Amino acid sequence: MRGAPIEFWFDFSSGYAYFAAHVIDEVAQRHDRSVLWRPYMLGVAFKHTGARGLSSTPMKGDYARRDWARLARITGLGFQLPPNHPITALPASRAYYWVEERFPEQAHEFARRAFRAYYSEGADMSSPANVAALGEPLGIPTADLEAGLASPPLKERVKAVSAEAIEKGVFGSPFFLADGEPFWGWDRIPMLEQWLRTGSW
Amino acid sequence: MRGAPIEFWFDFSSGYAYFAAHVIDEVAQRHDRSVLWRPYMLGVAFKHTGARGLSSTPMKGDYARRDWARLARITGLGFQLPPNHPITALPASRAYYWVEERFPEQAHEFARRAFRAYYSEGADMSSPANVAALGEPLGIPTADLEAGLASPPLKERVKAVSAEAIEKGVFGSPFFLADGEPFWGWDRIPMLEQWLRTGSW
Repeated sequence: MRGAPIEFWFDFSSGYAYFAAHVIDEVAQRHDRSVLWRPYMLGVAFKHTGARGLSSTPMKGDYARRDWARLARITGLGFQLPPNHPITALPASRAYYWVEERFPEQAHEFARRAFRAYYSEGADMSSPANVAALGEPLGIPTADLEAGLASPPLKERVKAVSAEAIEKGVFGSPFFLADGEPFWGWDRIPMLEQWLRTGSW
Repeated sequence: MRGAPIEFWFDFSSGYAYFAAHVIDEVAQRHDRSVLWRPYMLGVAFKHTGARGLSSTPMKGDYARRDWARLARITGLGFQLPPNHPITALPASRAYYWVEERFPEQAHEFARRAFRAYYSEGADMSSPANVAALGEPLGIPTADLEAGLASPPLKERVKAVSAEAIEKGVFGSPFFLADGEPFWGWDRIPMLEQWLRTGSW
């Protein structure tokens, strides 16, 4: 891969990030780039922007639910908003960094499975045991991952990454950085791709 | 024109609406549609969603300013954020409905001129006199328009349109409705066009 990795910032409870997670690696690959996946706590950014989750915002919540269903039809991806949405995505975020360090080749697929478990299989992703079990088919030992999830360094890691997001001006999900150029939102992927193709404007 | 008009909802102080205003008529025309321009008071929607203007939101404001400059480079449209942005767009909105009723053929061009005056010529659009003068090159008598701007029915009209926006679930700018299908944001214009092409998903 030539060129610096594209940074893909997201929260595992974000509907638009679910759709982005299924295409971003292919987009990058077409332009000979890798992707650095960076799950973080969107709630930390919300404290800075004063925003709140889409689903719990009047009018916008209705639009988002309709829009996600529409994106599911357009993309052919399954999508079933969990009845308890939004729930904390903290266990999945912590798990991601554990997997990334020990099973880097499986990390993106692990993340996509976490998204699918939440957004099309109705799994309770606030449960560390459920999150840990997602790695099994990828050869990631469930017991080790579950033990790792409770470790203080992993908690600190996600906090530190979330602070890094704020420092970089990242406040949404999905949010992409390519060579420092910021792109906010699923619908900016074509513009991100234009950037990757041309390198400047 | 076949098919129902596309509704284009916007606030004259919205940067993304400025860019949308320069392309929406052409997009519609390609699919044999007309466009119903509907300036409204975005602040009314903000009261429902709890949102606030992009420019005054931490982090998002910085992103938006960078993004607008980027869109200006991409589209070739001039863009110079006024130093006193955002200011009230009420005079321009009122003027729009006055012009639409009396000079319907000139209305869209009048609106584009109002956008350009604000976003690339640094005009103070909170001044009814400045807004009224925009119609002169289009054959719209400045004195008549300025007198109209102060009339109570026009004030009520903009209030009523803004209430209609809320009823229809419109909460952003630009915001499009095509056959009842909602599209929020400048970056959703390609998806709106896909809808116009296919008629369903």
